[in-house]
Amino acid sequence: MLERAVIIGDGQMALVTADAIAERGMAVRVWSPFKEDAAALARSRLSPRLKDFHITEAVEITGEDAAAFSDVTLVVNAIPTQFIRSVWQRLGEHLPAGVPIISVSKGIENKTLLRPTQVIAEIVGEDHPLCVLSGPTIAAELAQRMPATMVAASADLQLGRRVQDLLNVPWLRIYTNDDLLGVELAGATKNVIALAAGMIDGLGAGDNAKSALLARGLAEIARLGAALGARLDTFFGIAGVGDLATTCFSPEGRNRTCGERLGRGEKLQDILAESSSVVEGVPTTQSVVELAERHGVDMPITRAVHAILFEDMSPRDAITELMSREMKVEQIG
Amino acid sequence: MLERAVIIGDGQMALVTADAIAERGMAVRVWSPFKEDAAALARSRLSPRLKDFHITEAVEITGEDAAAFSDVTLVVNAIPTQFIRSVWQRLGEHLPAGVPIISVSKGIENKTLLRPTQVIAEIVGEDHPLCVLSGPTIAAELAQRMPATMVAASADLQLGRRVQDLLNVPWLRIYTNDDLLGVELAGATKNVIALAAGMIDGLGAGDNAKSALLARGLAEIARLGAALGARLDTFFGIAGVGDLATTCFSPEGRNRTCGERLGRGEKLQDILAESSSVVEGVPTTQSVVELAERHGVDMPITRAVHAILFEDMSPRDAITELMSREMKVEQIG
Repeated sequence: MLERAVIIGDGQMALVTADAIAERGMAVRVWSPFKEDAAALARSRLSPRLKDFHITEAVEITGEDAAAFSDVTLVVNAIPTQFIRSVWQRLGEHLPAGVPIISVSKGIENKTLLRPTQVIAEIVGEDHPLCVLSGPTIAAELAQRMPATMVAASADLQLGRRVQDLLNVPWLRIYTNDDLLGVELAGATKNVIALAAGMIDGLGAGDNAKSALLARGLAEIARLGAALGARLDTFFGIAGVGDLATTCFSPEGRNRTCGERLGRGEKLQDILAESSSVVEGVPTTQSVVELAERHGVDMPITRAVHAILFEDMSPRDAITELMSREMKVEQIG
Repeated sequence: MLERAVIIGDGQMALVTADAIAERGMAVRVWSPFKEDAAALARSRLSPRLKDFHITEAVEITGEDAAAFSDVTLVVNAIPTQFIRSVWQRLGEHLPAGVPIISVSKGIENKTLLRPTQVIAEIVGEDHPLCVLSGPTIAAELAQRMPATMVAASADLQLGRRVQDLLNVPWLRIYTNDDLLGVELAGATKNVIALAAGMIDGLGAGDNAKSALLARGLAEIARLGAALGARLDTFFGIAGVGDLATTCFSPEGRNRTCGERLGRGEKLQDILAESSSVVEGVPTTQSVVELAERHGVDMPITRAVHAILFEDMSPRDAITELMSREMKVEQIG
């Protein structure tokens, strides 16, 4: 079917998703929360955060709340997690009844410990079919239309297929999956592990250590997922280990880069103050530690990241402590 | 207990393993299949393949077959897979009865399709307890005593614990695991996926594509493992996804590097002729394709690597074909 999609958000993922939808020949509109940003983007067609990327004129840009939803058949949420609630509180009244919402946000809301689609459902009600779109998608590569895969996860298989079709361009391969909870949780928690991976880079501890961390990190986020009712399998698929790998190894990743600077001894406040984008893993670490406590799940890497971010522990001490924990039988999931 | 170990082989993994055992305070001897190599190594204490690495005088070096096994309590097999049979046919008669054998080789023998420990057992008999030692262990990093983890897999838990103790040095963390089959198979098959990962690097296709390949590659080697009786879990642990990640992403890896040169258009024969070390993934690809056929397991990435290595398919065509296969529901294991 011919879709008309609106993307709520004007960050990197919003723009590269719009690029694919436009190339697919579907109508697509990008909504920016700030009218000035929308006007600048509509004029320049360039994003300050995506080098050499030009947004085609086929993509409509708007800063108007009501107009954003005119005639849309699909809505894509691409707002940083901690801002989803306020954005949807503002937009909710304009949302057409029953229109499906696809979320690409990767985080967990502080205090409520809700996933992006849970926050949205709490505000806009339960009559919108939900889908999570996730995977190893460094935006700088998608901006160059380099090949990538994603998972469209929804309890509504029909909606998963629509998202598959919406993004059916030569450089994307979309898999469907019915474990929305697992896919959304994997996308959020991998950012915490990526912070730790970056620290290993910053400490110069090497790829053996980073790969061990990736494996042990995967085991602990899968354990949390299983405790929350997700399928373990999901964590070992494209939206799990695939996304985790690219986030831990790509030099472009924001969370990895933030971790690397922490590993080199910089202060979190200084890094965040200089960053033009949100580092999702930082607030998500707080939420994940609380989720793990609530569900009695052991997450030593996440706890170490928390201690480094918020309790003044040095990355070197934390990594040494992780490496010297009592040797034991390997336990997965 | 105080061990006296002999390492059969003088490659990179043999030397860095000897280094750890010596540092642990256990007696250790390295056996080289060539008397001249043993003499050169004993004199120089340097390896041509490990920059800035010096083998301590505490490590005895020998090229004598019978002397190699004098008073040993443990034997470590570190011979490239396709040479294990001939080496052990030569050494077998000197092996003391009942002494345990730990294998660090990562491959599958051509034609017989046997794993390293199966080849050894076929030659030396069934009365030697077996252990597989595997994990993300780029030798260049271990040579610098950078932190790493490994899995000691054995049906004999007692032997797993002895290996844990043998390598109990500050830069290593050894996990025990009872799924020897899974750990050994994961170590072999990840080299095939690493060849494909290198091709993606050579083609400049990016980290999103490489991470998707890692996830889909993991799914297909896990599927083979399950069909052969391994635990699926093992593939999602340190010796599975951990080793796969370091092999796909570390610039040092031989299999990844070989794949990268293939991706850039070089010919396999030229690459192998110039390489001073064995590229385990190349013969292993042949064995894995046959194993998959025999057990009716679908392994599209492995088949693509086979087509590139042995059937003159271009890496670009193969990757494009993989990316454009019919979109479908994600399936793990």
